[in-house]
Amino acid sequence: MKSFFKVKSLEQVMEQVPGFDCLGSESVPVSESVGRILAQDLVAQKDLPGFRRSTMDGFAVAAASTFGASESSPAWLEISGTIGMGDIPDFELMPGKAARISTGGMLPKGADSVIMVEHTQLVDDLSVEIFKSVAPLQHVIDVSEDFARHDRILTQGSLIRPQEAGLAAGLGFEVLELYRTPRVGIISTGDEVVPVHAEPNPGQIRDINSYALAGFVEQAGARAVAYGIVPDDPDQLRAVCETALTQTDMVLISGGSSVGSRDYTVEVLQSLPDTRILVHGISLSPGKPTILARSGRVPVFGLPGQVTSAMVVFQIVVTPFLNRLKGDLQLNRQTRIPAVLSRNIASAQGRTDYVRVSLTKDTKGYIAEPVLGKSGLIRTMVMADGLVEIPENTEGYEKGTLVDVILI
Amino acid sequence: MKSFFKVKSLEQVMEQVPGFDCLGSESVPVSESVGRILAQDLVAQKDLPGFRRSTMDGFAVAAASTFGASESSPAWLEISGTIGMGDIPDFELMPGKAARISTGGMLPKGADSVIMVEHTQLVDDLSVEIFKSVAPLQHVIDVSEDFARHDRILTQGSLIRPQEAGLAAGLGFEVLELYRTPRVGIISTGDEVVPVHAEPNPGQIRDINSYALAGFVEQAGARAVAYGIVPDDPDQLRAVCETALTQTDMVLISGGSSVGSRDYTVEVLQSLPDTRILVHGISLSPGKPTILARSGRVPVFGLPGQVTSAMVVFQIVVTPFLNRLKGDLQLNRQTRIPAVLSRNIASAQGRTDYVRVSLTKDTKGYIAEPVLGKSGLIRTMVMADGLVEIPENTEGYEKGTLVDVILI
Repeated sequence: MKSFFKVKSLEQVMEQVPGFDCLGSESVPVSESVGRILAQDLVAQKDLPGFRRSTMDGFAVAAASTFGASESSPAWLEISGTIGMGDIPDFELMPGKAARISTGGMLPKGADSVIMVEHTQLVDDLSVEIFKSVAPLQHVIDVSEDFARHDRILTQGSLIRPQEAGLAAGLGFEVLELYRTPRVGIISTGDEVVPVHAEPNPGQIRDINSYALAGFVEQAGARAVAYGIVPDDPDQLRAVCETALTQTDMVLISGGSSVGSRDYTVEVLQSLPDTRILVHGISLSPGKPTILARSGRVPVFGLPGQVTSAMVVFQIVVTPFLNRLKGDLQLNRQTRIPAVLSRNIASAQGRTDYVRVSLTKDTKGYIAEPVLGKSGLIRTMVMADGLVEIPENTEGYEKGTLVDVILI
Repeated sequence: MKSFFKVKSLEQVMEQVPGFDCLGSESVPVSESVGRILAQDLVAQKDLPGFRRSTMDGFAVAAASTFGASESSPAWLEISGTIGMGDIPDFELMPGKAARISTGGMLPKGADSVIMVEHTQLVDDLSVEIFKSVAPLQHVIDVSEDFARHDRILTQGSLIRPQEAGLAAGLGFEVLELYRTPRVGIISTGDEVVPVHAEPNPGQIRDINSYALAGFVEQAGARAVAYGIVPDDPDQLRAVCETALTQTDMVLISGGSSVGSRDYTVEVLQSLPDTRILVHGISLSPGKPTILARSGRVPVFGLPGQVTSAMVVFQIVVTPFLNRLKGDLQLNRQTRIPAVLSRNIASAQGRTDYVRVSLTKDTKGYIAEPVLGKSGLIRTMVMADGLVEIPENTEGYEKGTLVDVILI
């Protein structure tokens, strides 16, 4: 049976993303949260900071005590004491007085600002000259100036970077509710594919896709589960698919590069319970023969066997689905860098083309140099720093055009 | 004892990088190599591919048999057989003949190109019409076209991305010699700092730096080892430093934010065996009070206690040293994005300033909007997408200037 091959546009494929559900959430120590997606809104339980803090080493003062002070006519203040780190000052600062304070120290009552030590000179142990006036709240972070109690500090669906982890820790969140890390099953297919430790005969090739795809999966913040190499045999593929579907949240089947095996990949998927083919062919180059099915809640991709095509399809097509499972509100997180094309690139209308480029930087910005060589060469992916998208209704770009480069 | 505080420029600090040695190497399965640095040159032991492969589904032919073929005057070729995936064709293709082949299949002797199935039409089981001519080697990857035996395919000091891992696997490298992943010890100091699970009194603050720095360390491809919080006490700091120095490859001491404790951090470091202070103060904002010492082979950084300063110093100063330990030939791997400034930013001459910005994208490219708010607010790091460097001898940038944004 030859399925009817109705090629979809990339846009139509992306419309399928919201049809899949985010994975569930789990409680994770804040120390293991970086790179994952928040499954809750985070609301401050307390003010941050909870007290008026100094941001400089110097003297806590009432700003008014310094008004008019200058190099030529310094203010002369009496030193009331020294505030130790972590201490609650046990005195109130009177006008005309100053207290020694360090960065992070708590201002005493009566003080509203800090004069930097560089703008002072000790007269003796009890008094100090001030050479500059300060404004109220200068060199100070006031109570709740960072976040106030009940403020929503981070929203559901946002990525935890190190600074967000630090902030959560600062507000006392030892544990965060995060979306589960997707497990992605990887199946390599093809009678011609042999394991990395085998010596390929002529006509055979080692399994490259399992390794490259696992790397991309891990880089995308998911966990790769390898199911090895399956020969071009529908029954074996069905058995491995069934196992992968019970153990993982997404399945990538790469290869089945012959016309016949592509057909049986679709047949195998159609024969699985609760499984529908959503996409069979995308107007994308490289990557046209991509398949997307839905089996229960699990997206299943049939990726091209050609490794460079599989890599592009992973970056462009699979990633938004993976981000959806992860609970990420941003479906595309790839960095896009503006760069000037070093030469013309042609493209066929009616499909979205992705051209590999290497980037160099000169004083005026980045230059994108298309990587020469046939698209099937792995070398072109190793030499590439990124991809340039040529949209469906464009015939190509001329040398000198400013394009966006998707870093890979 | 108050050390003489001789502030170094960022450039002078970077001159210290090559003084530290790369860590040793270890053998790692290729499946765990992504994100790490190669400690050997990788040389192809065999040609890749080892045979003439098809990159399309169609018919293997001698190009000469198709010359002159067109829609209006197709070439008519006899079908000699079908080449199975992974098979070595057991026949030689004669002129005027064609053999069915799939993407990745091995061309038979006598064939030098492949005509795409889209440009053919079967006449019957034994013959096919060809509507387009092909050139020799079209839709084919020739023997050794990707890499030839004895080619250096990857060089020592290069980063393994998924595509490099795939390539190595494709050439039969099950195990790679990679530089060891640095272990980075993180020590938080300060009498005012309490653990994340504690309820801070006024004057106290939770330990933010341990979490944020650990996140940055892991993002930079190293392993964070947390040594907790040490109060402002030289003996305790010395003891924890000694432990960290025996267990890790780099030590970060953050905090000691009071003038006095900064002094004793230097004293403690100076009192350790085989330890020298290399840098005590950098003409950098934020981050001036940064310390760098060398203890044996181990770089030890004293970072500012203020979390936003510590983050900037990690990104700008620590990262190149960490990349050096990792064996990375590229000391800076942060992505820099050209963007147009949305407003003037001022800067003091004589120091390198780093301004936090958020990025938005319009049709003409990225716009960098300086994040408002005092530099000590963690909020500013959470709102920031990157940093703009204002070099030492610049007074600032005007609105509309094209700047580089270092992504954080």
